[in-house]
Amino acid sequence: MDALETILNHRSIRKFRPDPISDEMLNTILEAASRASTTGNMQVYSIIVSRDQSIKEALLPLHFGQKMVTEAPVVLTFCADFNRFNLWCHQRDADPGYDNFLSFMTAAIDALLAAQNACIAAESFGLGICYLGTTTYLAEPIAKVLKLPLGVVPVTTVVLGWPDQEVPLTDRLPMRAVVHQEVYQNFSAEEIDEIYSERENSALTKRLLEENGLDNLAKVFVEKRYTKRDNVQFSGTLLNFLKHQQFFNQ
Amino acid sequence: MDALETILNHRSIRKFRPDPISDEMLNTILEAASRASTTGNMQVYSIIVSRDQSIKEALLPLHFGQKMVTEAPVVLTFCADFNRFNLWCHQRDADPGYDNFLSFMTAAIDALLAAQNACIAAESFGLGICYLGTTTYLAEPIAKVLKLPLGVVPVTTVVLGWPDQEVPLTDRLPMRAVVHQEVYQNFSAEEIDEIYSERENSALTKRLLEENGLDNLAKVFVEKRYTKRDNVQFSGTLLNFLKHQQFFNQ
Repeated sequence: MDALETILNHRSIRKFRPDPISDEMLNTILEAASRASTTGNMQVYSIIVSRDQSIKEALLPLHFGQKMVTEAPVVLTFCADFNRFNLWCHQRDADPGYDNFLSFMTAAIDALLAAQNACIAAESFGLGICYLGTTTYLAEPIAKVLKLPLGVVPVTTVVLGWPDQEVPLTDRLPMRAVVHQEVYQNFSAEEIDEIYSERENSALTKRLLEENGLDNLAKVFVEKRYTKRDNVQFSGTLLNFLKHQQFFNQ
Repeated sequence: MDALETILNHRSIRKFRPDPISDEMLNTILEAASRASTTGNMQVYSIIVSRDQSIKEALLPLHFGQKMVTEAPVVLTFCADFNRFNLWCHQRDADPGYDNFLSFMTAAIDALLAAQNACIAAESFGLGICYLGTTTYLAEPIAKVLKLPLGVVPVTTVVLGWPDQEVPLTDRLPMRAVVHQEVYQNFSAEEIDEIYSERENSALTKRLLEENGLDNLAKVFVEKRYTKRDNVQFSGTLLNFLKHQQFFNQ
């Protein structure tokens, strides 16, 4: 399918048929991932392919029980990875200086661009994908299941498989909410109202407010979905894990 | 062009014809960016479009003088952005808890998936793109030029325009360097030698060794291109800037 059409038709798919993805198709998706730009062509990322049911079951609670983890035929965990590069440097009598936060960011960027390539390639085959934002919340136990060595940190996870649901295109804020010409144009109160008005008046929002017993959508995010308490806790554990994985040695 | 073909044919383009990109084409590229998955559909990223020559000239030294910054007709800076979301929350009497490291990562992920969508859309039109890894090195002065408010941090930059060079496909390590089945399979010394052998014996590597007066490629990275000294310095300034932009208040 045309690249633009594939991109513009993206939906997150959370229900999958049990049918497997062929090795050939999966390999093409992984090759597509590997063609993404990486800093200095260092390729400081890795992709862990989980198809074994027991591994997916071990991952399931770490992604907060989202059933697609075990129902999707393939789970891909994209990792920031300086382990291989460091091994190579040591073996060549070169002293690597990548045990710091900047290098983690470099590696995380490599991993994320590769992930998006994989997703678009998968969708061009008619597969459905969903990102799991939970990866950064519980990076340490996920790393334990996947036996990630020092220098490797999971950054995002993608489940993929054949869609077993039809979902409409998700709404997006008007483009002026996201795009700024030349310099950042900060928002007036009226502009914020305007930008969020369609979303706030949608049927989905009405349902969310009822379900959560709250009077506006912002409160659903702040009080239910992404609370300060959770964010602060997971920030702490993520930073500790980055230190443990030797990305804070500067 | 077919999505897979577009992805597999990616090259980084660093020389551009002076021809502009039409508004219509640019808007489609930005719309493609906005279709990428974002955490909870919060869309906590922004894209700063630089076409004005004076702004591109101000950015040029912050990207270490890479001429494509002023020669490409369009420069896109992708930012992790909780500013808009926080403004909205405050205006709705909801107390946002996104001034922490986890939220920065969430927003950076949003920004990077959007960036890769933009790149693939641009390439499907025949445009050339190049990522500038320098964005995280000098995030603070870049933010100053682009007038980014608190809560906004530039994560990556993409230059785009009509290619004025033909470049071969960049080599990649064999897939087994990047892909692990089920769990991470760490590398033996022999495997490291094997994985890097083609790259180490390439004509490009021979040229780099001569240019740098070094005896192996790993040393080119460690001693010249990405030194510990630079990494440690830029780690410090990036972390300080994240604190300043209120992503370390947990």
